[in-house]
Amino acid sequence: MMGHGDIDQLITMLARLPGLGPRSARRAALALLRQPESRMLPLAHLMERAATSVKTCSLCGNLDTVDPCHICTDAGRDRGLICVVETVGDLWALERAGVHRGGYQVLGGTLSALAGLGPDDLNVRPLFERIEEGGVREVILALSATVEGATTAHWLQERLLPTGVAVTRVGHGVPMGGALDVLDDGTLAAALTARRSL
Amino acid sequence: MMGHGDIDQLITMLARLPGLGPRSARRAALALLRQPESRMLPLAHLMERAATSVKTCSLCGNLDTVDPCHICTDAGRDRGLICVVETVGDLWALERAGVHRGGYQVLGGTLSALAGLGPDDLNVRPLFERIEEGGVREVILALSATVEGATTAHWLQERLLPTGVAVTRVGHGVPMGGALDVLDDGTLAAALTARRSL
Repeated sequence: MMGHGDIDQLITMLARLPGLGPRSARRAALALLRQPESRMLPLAHLMERAATSVKTCSLCGNLDTVDPCHICTDAGRDRGLICVVETVGDLWALERAGVHRGGYQVLGGTLSALAGLGPDDLNVRPLFERIEEGGVREVILALSATVEGATTAHWLQERLLPTGVAVTRVGHGVPMGGALDVLDDGTLAAALTARRSL
Repeated sequence: MMGHGDIDQLITMLARLPGLGPRSARRAALALLRQPESRMLPLAHLMERAATSVKTCSLCGNLDTVDPCHICTDAGRDRGLICVVETVGDLWALERAGVHRGGYQVLGGTLSALAGLGPDDLNVRPLFERIEEGGVREVILALSATVEGATTAHWLQERLLPTGVAVTRVGHGVPMGGALDVLDDGTLAAALTARRSL
C-alpha cells in the first residue's frame, strides 16, 4: 500500500502490537525509517538481544535477563511474603508503585472456563515448593477483581489451606471489574495495606 | 525499573516512538517478550533489513525499497501532474485515499523561521529539474493549512511562476490549522477536486 514490501510489513507488524493502531503504527514506522542508523538499527539489535537474554524466572515466573530473577535473589526482600499476580504486567505495576517488599508468584493467567484454562495451565508449582521448603508466612493474592480472578483466588485459597500459611487478598481500592495493571500507585498501596484474611 | 537492562531499555526505546506512551510501550514490550521467537525476532530482522533496504527516492523524496520509487516509475501515472507535500506521511495519506494519479514531490518540511528552516532545507531541486526537462503541466500544492504551509505555498508559487507551469493548491476541505496527515479520505478527495489556480 505505502511502499513496497518491507515498509508495508513493518507497519503491519507494528500495528499488531497492543496499544498501537494503524495510525500510530504508521507514525512509528515513519519515525524509524527516517532515522535508520540512529533509531531503527539500535532497536532491532536490542530486540534481537532481548529475545535470547530475557527468560522466565523459574522461581516466580517474572521476566528478567537472569534466572532466578533479581527480585528472587534480592537479599533485602522479605522471602516470607509472596504476592500472587496474574501477569508480569501486574508484577511491574506493583514494582512501580514500590508497595510490596516480598517475592512474587506470576500465575500467567487465571482459571477460565471460557478460555479453557484449568489448574494445570497456571504456574503455581513453584509457590507450593517454596512453601514446602519453609519460611513462607503469608501469601497475598493480588488478582483482578473479575469473576475469573475471584474463582482463581478461591481455588488457591483452598489449596493453600492445608499448608497452614496465612492467605490474604488485596483489599479495598481495587475497583470491581477492573484489572490490576491499570491502577494508580495510591490505589495499589491502599489495596495492599487493607488486605484481610480469607 | 522493571527488570534488568534489556527490558528497561526496550520499554524506553518503544516509549520514545511517536504514538506510544509509557503504558503502551510496556504493553508492547510485554507482548514481544512473551513471544520472542514468533514475534520479537521477526520484527527485529525486518527492521534490520528495512534499515538498509528502504531509501529516499532521488526524484520525489518518497521512501521505498527502490530508487526511483514505484510511484515515479509507474507508467500508469500522469507524469504531467505533480503534487507537492510536506512529508512522506502526507504522501501516504493521499495514496491511501487513492485520489491523486500523478507524481509527488516531498519537501521534507515547510519554511519556518521558528524551526530555522529556509529554502535550502526543502527538497525542491528535483521538482524544478523535472519541470525543466518538460512534460510537467501542473503542480498541485497539498500543504498543511498552517502559517508555515501558506508561507511555503506562496514562496513556491513565486518560484514556479517563471516556468509557466500551472500552479494550483488543494481547495475546500482542508480545515484551517489542521495538518494534511490526519484528514479522512473524503475530505482529501474534496480538497483535490476543488483545487483552484493561484
